[in-house]
Amino acid sequence: MHITRKERFNAAHRLYRKDYTDEKNLKVFGKCSNPNWHGHNYDLYVTVKGKVNPETGFVINLKQLSKIIKEFVIQKLDHKNINLEVDFMQGKLASTENIAIAIWEQLEEPVRSLHAELFSIKIYETENNFVEYFGEQYI
Amino acid sequence: MHITRKERFNAAHRLYRKDYTDEKNLKVFGKCSNPNWHGHNYDLYVTVKGKVNPETGFVINLKQLSKIIKEFVIQKLDHKNINLEVDFMQGKLASTENIAIAIWEQLEEPVRSLHAELFSIKIYETENNFVEYFGEQYI
Amino acid sequence: MHITRKERFNAAHRLYRKDYTDEKNLKVFGKCSNPNWHGHNYDLYVTVKGKVNPETGFVINLKQLSKIIKEFVIQKLDHKNINLEVDFMQGKLASTENIAIAIWEQLEEPVRSLHAELFSIKIYETENNFVEYFGEQYI
Amino acid sequence: MHITRKERFNAAHRLYRKDYTDEKNLKVFGKCSNPNWHGHNYDLYVTVKGKVNPETGFVINLKQLSKIIKEFVIQKLDHKNINLEVDFMQGKLASTENIAIAIWEQLEEPVRSLHAELFSIKIYETENNFVEYFGEQYI
Amino acid sequence: MHITRKERFNAAHRLYRKDYTDEKNLKVFGKCSNPNWHGHNYDLYVTVKGKVNPETGFVINLKQLSKIIKEFVIQKLDHKNINLEVDFMQGKLASTENIAIAIWEQLEEPVRSLHAELFSIKIYETENNFVEYFGEQYI
Amino acid sequence: MHITRKERFNAAHRLYRKDYTDEKNLKVFGKCSNPNWHGHNYDLYVTVKGKVNPETGFVINLKQLSKIIKEFVIQKLDHKNINLEVDFMQGKLASTENIAIAIWEQLEEPVRSLHAELFSIKIYETENNFVEYFGEQYI
Repeated sequence: MHITRKERFNAAHRLYRKDYTDEKNLKVFGKCSNPNWHGHNYDLYVTVKGKVNPETGFVINLKQLSKIIKEFVIQKLDHKNINLEVDFMQGKLASTENIAIAIWEQLEEPVRSLHAELFSIKIYETENNFVEYFGEQYI
Repeated sequence: MHITRKERFNAAHRLYRKDYTDEKNLKVFGKCSNPNWHGHNYDLYVTVKGKVNPETGFVINLKQLSKIIKEFVIQKLDHKNINLEVDFMQGKLASTENIAIAIWEQLEEPVRSLHAELFSIKIYETENNFVEYFGEQYI
Repeated sequence: MHITRKERFNAAHRLYRKDYTDEKNLKVFGKCSNPNWHGHNYDLYVTVKGKVNPETGFVINLKQLSKIIKEFVIQKLDHKNINLEVDFMQGKLASTENIAIAIWEQLEEPVRSLHAELFSIKIYETENNFVEYFGEQYI
Repeated sequence: MHITRKERFNAAHRLYRKDYTDEKNLKVFGKCSNPNWHGHNYDLYVTVKGKVNPETGFVINLKQLSKIIKEFVIQKLDHKNINLEVDFMQGKLASTENIAIAIWEQLEEPVRSLHAELFSIKIYETENNFVEYFGEQYI
Repeated sequence: MHITRKERFNAAHRLYRKDYTDEKNLKVFGKCSNPNWHGHNYDLYVTVKGKVNPETGFVINLKQLSKIIKEFVIQKLDHKNINLEVDFMQGKLASTENIAIAIWEQLEEPVRSLHAELFSIKIYETENNFVEYFGEQYI
Repeated sequence: MHITRKERFNAAHRLYRKDYTDEKNLKVFGKCSNPNWHGHNYDLYVTVKGKVNPETGFVINLKQLSKIIKEFVIQKLDHKNINLEVDFMQGKLASTENIAIAIWEQLEEPVRSLHAELFSIKIYETENNFVEYFGEQYI
């Protein structure tokens, strides 16, 4: 059984490498390399996997899951600059892929402490683009 | 190949255990334990799995699938009280997880009779919360 | 300039008249007259009208508007039984139309206290049915 | 007859006044005053009003309308910093209300040149917040 | 008070004039002039206006409204070729504007027979394009 | 890591077999067998699978993926008649299942040339019906 909680955050970011020239950044990352930043309304879907607890009928208590996601992820990302202000993104390219991996790493332990297993992190950057990460053991 | 049909139902429910005190019900189930009921517009996605029939180009005839879902599930749940009126939920906690398992059990045989295999039951309780069940053999 | 805030509530209700027989309730209100209740995820759109304050660039502070909607409407309706538990719906048929009028009456004064004017109350009962109320002066 | 074209842009912004202290900016504009920027996926709905041309069956040619919106609005806003980079927002607070008014001013003449009349500019900042502007003559 | 019912239909159409050359059709109507047809999932919103009946709490019985829309509109358009098969579109360009006007003419009388007044017909051709018609008296 | 790009196309089609009588076509394919065609707004989700390139933070460059989808799929399907005009659908029943398989075959090689692996093709025919194809090796 999978159970999913959707949360949202709005943030600014920029895709670029310091070791690239401006032209190369523009060529590789396109409009996303704008030095003055741009931003998105990100939709985050956290899916956990587990058995149904016969006493509660729940795989996981969604209020507790939502609380964990807010504490470890949303309050660090929401209305922030992902490149400059988010501790778990320091030194990483602010691509949606890397945000998904970093959110997985933020949530893996806290979800385990609720006796469930993280299954996937899905992030919509726009309605047309999204990534889904299943952790390392999937490979 | 997977093929999915979406149907909808509106129903009342309450999450609680008779063997819990009111305080414990409130602590475990929160606002969902309201003794006067509350309700939802549930979205149900039924996914079946199979090969494409070369004569029709279909995995399954969606009209027949929709008919089966309506007969075995929707007409029993729609505009009903899940705790009091739904035969296949008697004696069970009315959590979204348990509703998904019960719908799987309702549909497994009828889908097989259409020469296809049930793959998953996905239910949205709200736009932010949903569960997906893949049957027992998945574990 | 109109500005709109969307909020949500989940509630149970029943459409019926005590002075109707069961048959007449069923005939007039259909499945919505189920004595055991059913429920919905209601989407509420509150639109206010006003001039842009040149100092803030706002018609109204959306956080304050959201706070007022939660205080006067959402916490009274969310996870409740509209017929039995909502003070401002006592003695009224729990139709979406009547809920919209009652929410207008709840919000008209509080919105005015924020120096703006309530323009409309829009409620989606399902994705296929919604009402919009503009107050009495509209007629 | 009204006809509407939806376009999208992603941008960074910040709400603040230079003549406010940091505390006052935070109090008035909340998280939106973050000095390191944040951003959104904005949805823009441009509605024009007119009679149906009996020769084409169109109020306005939507391809031409879309082209005008892209030229005068989207390419100036998309993947930009609204405070720093958008000519028609210079010297203005980057609130959704002010963006709507500025887009109206950008489009009023070009729409007229297509023999139609601008009716409204509607902008969603998030799925829960949107504004709609009808021009000055509406007041 | 406005109340709206959403219905859907899928249909093929083509935009062209017999008195235009193929080049002119292509220039004016673009890809929509394809002689082999193309099609859409149309979303139709029918809004009626009226007072709330104090006995029922309804402006109009939505089941009766839905039945009328299906009888006079949907069953004539759904899974049809708008240019070739729809009686009320004969001799007209199959633009969304003209479909909206024709649907208004189909529904005006039947809605009146339910003691309500048609307020608007809104049609989405795609998620990015829609029209809204308010009848002749609006002008 | 999975990454998905959504594209859209509008097309006409008809489900029927030449070797069936009209009655049998109507019985098997229902309204979809209308000889005068009907059509849909199809939503296409192309999901690719791969490792994150540490230099770019990308599994695949989404602009290049979008370009490939447009070149090999969208421009062949959009505003076309699937039965008559689409080379890769010739001689096949125009069911959503068969369209998904044919799109997979169109994209498998081009995606590989971008150093990624096609994972699934998902197509929504309407909001209630969709198919997902994972390629032959999945079986």
